[in-house]
Amino acid sequence: MGLLSEGLTQVVIPLAAVVGLGFALLQWFLVSKVKVSGGHGERNGFKDKLIGDEEEGVSSVEVTIKCAEIQHAISIGATSFLFTQYRYLSIFVGVFSTIIFLFLGSVKGFSTKSEACAYNTGNMCKPALANAFFSTIAFLLGAFTSVLSGFLGMKIATYANARTTLEARRGVGKAFITAFRSGAVMGFLLAANGLLVLYITINLFKLYYGDDWEGLYESITGYGLGGSSMALFGRVGGGIYTKAADVGADLVGKVERNIPEDDPRNPAVIADNVGDNVGDIAGMGSDLFGSYAESSCAALFVASISSFGIGHDYTAMSYPLIISSMGIVVCLVTTLFATDLFEIKKVSEIEPALKRQLLISTVFMTAGIAAVTFVSLPSEFTLFSFGTNKAVKNWYLFFCVSIGLWAGLVIGYTTEYYTSNAYSPVQDVADSCRTGAATNVIFGLALGYKSVIIPVFAIAFAIYVSFSLAAMYGIAVAALGMLSTISTGLAIDAYGPISDNAGGIAEMAGMSHKIRERTDALDAAGNTTAAIGKGFAIGSAALVSLALFGAYVSRAGIETVDVLTPKVFIGLIVGAMLPYWFSAMTMKSVGSAALKMVEEVRRQFNTIPGLMEGTAKPDYATCVKISTDASLREMIPPGALVMLTPLVAGTFFGVETLAGILAGSLVSGVQIAISASNTGGAWDNAKKYIEAGGSEHAKSLGPKGSEPHKAAVIGDTIGDPLKDTSGPSLNILIKLMAVESLVFAPFFAAHGGLLFKWL
Amino acid sequence: MGLLSEGLTQVVIPLAAVVGLGFALLQWFLVSKVKVSGGHGERNGFKDKLIGDEEEGVSSVEVTIKCAEIQHAISIGATSFLFTQYRYLSIFVGVFSTIIFLFLGSVKGFSTKSEACAYNTGNMCKPALANAFFSTIAFLLGAFTSVLSGFLGMKIATYANARTTLEARRGVGKAFITAFRSGAVMGFLLAANGLLVLYITINLFKLYYGDDWEGLYESITGYGLGGSSMALFGRVGGGIYTKAADVGADLVGKVERNIPEDDPRNPAVIADNVGDNVGDIAGMGSDLFGSYAESSCAALFVASISSFGIGHDYTAMSYPLIISSMGIVVCLVTTLFATDLFEIKKVSEIEPALKRQLLISTVFMTAGIAAVTFVSLPSEFTLFSFGTNKAVKNWYLFFCVSIGLWAGLVIGYTTEYYTSNAYSPVQDVADSCRTGAATNVIFGLALGYKSVIIPVFAIAFAIYVSFSLAAMYGIAVAALGMLSTISTGLAIDAYGPISDNAGGIAEMAGMSHKIRERTDALDAAGNTTAAIGKGFAIGSAALVSLALFGAYVSRAGIETVDVLTPKVFIGLIVGAMLPYWFSAMTMKSVGSAALKMVEEVRRQFNTIPGLMEGTAKPDYATCVKISTDASLREMIPPGALVMLTPLVAGTFFGVETLAGILAGSLVSGVQIAISASNTGGAWDNAKKYIEAGGSEHAKSLGPKGSEPHKAAVIGDTIGDPLKDTSGPSLNILIKLMAVESLVFAPFFAAHGGLLFKWL
Repeated sequence: MGLLSEGLTQVVIPLAAVVGLGFALLQWFLVSKVKVSGGHGERNGFKDKLIGDEEEGVSSVEVTIKCAEIQHAISIGATSFLFTQYRYLSIFVGVFSTIIFLFLGSVKGFSTKSEACAYNTGNMCKPALANAFFSTIAFLLGAFTSVLSGFLGMKIATYANARTTLEARRGVGKAFITAFRSGAVMGFLLAANGLLVLYITINLFKLYYGDDWEGLYESITGYGLGGSSMALFGRVGGGIYTKAADVGADLVGKVERNIPEDDPRNPAVIADNVGDNVGDIAGMGSDLFGSYAESSCAALFVASISSFGIGHDYTAMSYPLIISSMGIVVCLVTTLFATDLFEIKKVSEIEPALKRQLLISTVFMTAGIAAVTFVSLPSEFTLFSFGTNKAVKNWYLFFCVSIGLWAGLVIGYTTEYYTSNAYSPVQDVADSCRTGAATNVIFGLALGYKSVIIPVFAIAFAIYVSFSLAAMYGIAVAALGMLSTISTGLAIDAYGPISDNAGGIAEMAGMSHKIRERTDALDAAGNTTAAIGKGFAIGSAALVSLALFGAYVSRAGIETVDVLTPKVFIGLIVGAMLPYWFSAMTMKSVGSAALKMVEEVRRQFNTIPGLMEGTAKPDYATCVKISTDASLREMIPPGALVMLTPLVAGTFFGVETLAGILAGSLVSGVQIAISASNTGGAWDNAKKYIEAGGSEHAKSLGPKGSEPHKAAVIGDTIGDPLKDTSGPSLNILIKLMAVESLVFAPFFAAHGGLLFKWL
Repeated sequence: MGLLSEGLTQVVIPLAAVVGLGFALLQWFLVSKVKVSGGHGERNGFKDKLIGDEEEGVSSVEVTIKCAEIQHAISIGATSFLFTQYRYLSIFVGVFSTIIFLFLGSVKGFSTKSEACAYNTGNMCKPALANAFFSTIAFLLGAFTSVLSGFLGMKIATYANARTTLEARRGVGKAFITAFRSGAVMGFLLAANGLLVLYITINLFKLYYGDDWEGLYESITGYGLGGSSMALFGRVGGGIYTKAADVGADLVGKVERNIPEDDPRNPAVIADNVGDNVGDIAGMGSDLFGSYAESSCAALFVASISSFGIGHDYTAMSYPLIISSMGIVVCLVTTLFATDLFEIKKVSEIEPALKRQLLISTVFMTAGIAAVTFVSLPSEFTLFSFGTNKAVKNWYLFFCVSIGLWAGLVIGYTTEYYTSNAYSPVQDVADSCRTGAATNVIFGLALGYKSVIIPVFAIAFAIYVSFSLAAMYGIAVAALGMLSTISTGLAIDAYGPISDNAGGIAEMAGMSHKIRERTDALDAAGNTTAAIGKGFAIGSAALVSLALFGAYVSRAGIETVDVLTPKVFIGLIVGAMLPYWFSAMTMKSVGSAALKMVEEVRRQFNTIPGLMEGTAKPDYATCVKISTDASLREMIPPGALVMLTPLVAGTFFGVETLAGILAGSLVSGVQIAISASNTGGAWDNAKKYIEAGGSEHAKSLGPKGSEPHKAAVIGDTIGDPLKDTSGPSLNILIKLMAVESLVFAPFFAAHGGLLFKWL
């Protein structure tokens, strides 16, 4: 037994979650001190001291009111979209929870008799029907928490965007802190909320399951499935929404009409800004919540069939949750560095500051992992590893979690190198714009492909070490290690779209060029950090999926997944194809929706008199509707592909082919996801590099409107669906198929492989 | 025993090869009847009856002389490039054959004693040192034959291009036949030559090996390695050469200066036309020769450790060679349909005619396979399958070969659907050019991703069936089945670049618009057929690699390749990354070389007075030199990646990790290769669709020089390196790593895995 008693564990975990929630509320309170108002009856902010300090030529009062109006419009748009989306999702959740209950219930023919446990064979376990019921409940809870995570993120983001704009008048450092704090709100809410719900669910389920820990943690995997399936629709739907609007707005506004990005005359501009909040914020929140929930579930499930579970060592069993608890504390301390200890004075300090946050949290967390590992794990124990028991020492686990954590840092730093315009890769891409869009695209694609190398080696190294030390449990906790600093990661990540929105609001409110320059600089750093966030998301998704895959294989009773058997190999090659199929769907969706948006925007410019002159207002609502409709309609086919593939493969081709599919989609999806999001990030920043003109080289390519700049805009537009729709959705594809297979594994093992049985 | 006696087999195989060679020479003779001359002392062709029939306004004599001059320049350029390349390759071959000899010789410490055989344990086998020696000889022969195949292909292509142009004056049908016949020369030369050299080598090696068939066919695998390693450099070097020139020429000529493609004022135009011959012809010839040699070697190796080998059934053992022999006969008959039985009268008949050739050869070959299978195989026999013996009936093999053959047809037809401008996918891409280059690229990428689905299912189906029926031998003969109609496939494929060159020559020789229209139509069909050829190449590469992989696993003594072991999994994920690394290198190489080309072409336009007016001649030689230098320098890093990966992985990480790498690169590489070549083909044809203006829809997008057309040109340029450099080179990546692993397997098994041994 470890040093930490069961009673203390029962206190520590919820306490950490509550501290996290409290800290999030504190940050929210601090952000709320920046006053924005106008138009809806509150006390106006224009008496606040900060107004009028630097603004020139434009009335401060008017600007503030305008900001408030725009913020309001964005918030309304995002909220209404999400609620519409939730209506669709509730149908899906209803249908799918029925499927889960029926499929899992049928495993033992809906019998209500207890049976001998599968692993701890001396013990009696609850009936399969109970597992079906509790898996369904866990699924619903996961779905709800995921949606809540996304929704709260959206709320704080739309609350913070105008505040960041207003703070930009007081300087880049103030604006940075506002955006970063808001990101932190989201990060802590998500991590604390996810932990708390999981903790409570386990304890409630335990009232029924008693000492049947196999059944308990089997059911808990439904939580991960619920989380990730909502994330799928959030990412895909949100991704299509945001990029249809963004691409549509850019193609007419920037390319044809030569007006700036986020110009209020552009009819698609509100839809574009709403999109950042529903796609990059709500979608990403759901996604990372999904990763977090799944890696916890995978670790818990694997642990439940190890000596922890069989010996009923509650503290050791709760090791994954204790790591997450420690993560919240570490991130809390880390956040103080950015918001209180250091101060940003210049634009060039933003990126290093964000990188420093990653490093600080990683270093502290390493110490935290050591502490947690030694107090909560017995010095030696056994883990189940595909039919054999593996003896493990507790310090092995320290290495497993740490290697995941540091692999995350390597991925983050590599991503930064390939997508930041401070380094040669993006500068080379910018330079290739001299000869036009074609070379820009060729160089950008090559950059994305190249950026895959180091992350894949990092992931492979983490997998090898953690697997060798502690089998599949090692992989699962490595994933948790990578996600343990999720609050900091999310703060950095959410900072991006908040700054993007802030820039949009500055432009729409007609603020001065100086302010716009500041928000642009925040935004450029945000592109890089968004890419870093995506790097973490995909890196952790790879580890999580592998852990889930391992759990699936155990649960489905497969001995080996031998590539040299035809059943597995065809799964492998078809699985490797799925990310392409999925990307084809999502990219085509964005393309078609963008075409519709272009037509509408052109129509408005052509038919509304005075629109270009700024004397008439565009019809924002129609553009919002186009994005909404496209997103809701187009998220169904890719969603169906992901959700149905495991069901069809498991039912008709059996557990081995499905195992092949999971492995194939994992190893192939990782590459496409990383390359797509880095290529897109690089193009975006190559464009910003030319626009900013911060060096002799950059100046020789600019200014805005030059031929190289036009080529860069084309690259940026192509990158939009890659980096914000298809790329990040692929994380979910690989995770979700794995967790779905895990949940349905007993069914497939009992009744699957119909096609091969018939032949 | 089968019906065919050993003596008869010894006659039938070389006879088929000789018939194939004779037929190739006959076709060459028929092509040579079109007279082209001028400038180098031969009797001029301008007295020939066909001249002056339709040419208007331009003197026929002058045109013919010009054609001859241009043809001469292209031929000189291509020959000199290939000889320069061969100098580099000879160094590589020298070094690598030493490595093969030393590594394989060291397996048993350079012992010269015979040992008990590994499979047929009662028998004595030749020493490992002898295998090392003969493998090296086989490697040299394979390398030589591969180079010869590419070189002869280039020779006939540069012989036929101007003749196709001249025949275009007599009508599109005549030009088609000339181009197709020339392709057939290449196809038959390659197939017959490959078969003959392999047959002779086996018989010569047999003089030493006697009844040690294990050692004999182990050594023969060196033939495949030699063939494919030359193909690697041919494809990569040739691909960089041709696309640097093409992209460079287009970026300045078409985009900046607004002069037509292949305009003689463009300094890069000769380099561009040379490139078609060294990349698309010589490179592709080496590639398909490699596939052919490897699938034969894989099948022979697997058979040698089955009951055929152990029972010394020479005819059954030669089954793979007999299939290839039958393929030559079937393709001979098929060719007559295109050249003599049907006649092309309209442009729109070209594509259906080429498709018909594929179908005819497939139907006839199915009958041919049935005949061959029943006369050469015993009705029942056993095959070695990873430690067990599998009982197989001869008609199983009929299904294995046939399913490979038909899967090839499915891949070919799917490719045609996605890349021909007769169908909606390409038309949609063309339509997306309305909103600019960005949507064109997004739609094009999505099209490529989508085009992967059916081919992968076809490959998976073929693998499942052939593997289930006859284990790895089934896969190997399925690959041979797909390649059995290689002569027809190559004729169709080589037709593309020949027509492309013909169009170039027509433009450069200043022939009338009507002629240029005809050659353009031939060329558009050629883009589709080139994509079909690439589809075959990648489909067969997938099957071949899997067969080689299976042979490698047997030879390395691995029992299972279990994805759930960390050694295998890290191999799998890193292997899946390699195609991205490789593509990044090759695309960046094309991009950089194209930038240099652009600078040179711009320089010439800016500094040579009268160039744009056509009064001064450009300096073609400098552009040729840029392409040559870039290609030779840049082919080394990707080549090293492919050649060194198996050596490094096997030596340091051992046979299991290497097995993972092979599986990972196979399942990932197939997808990128198919999507890259189809995306590129679709963009090219979307552009041609707009240019041709053959429908109301197409007219609404055109004409040349319109905004949509400009967007289409950008897509076409981006597609160039995808479809002609990185995409097709990936076939070789996956095949070559597999065959190299197979050859070095005994070394890795004996001495590999150093890193894990140290730890």
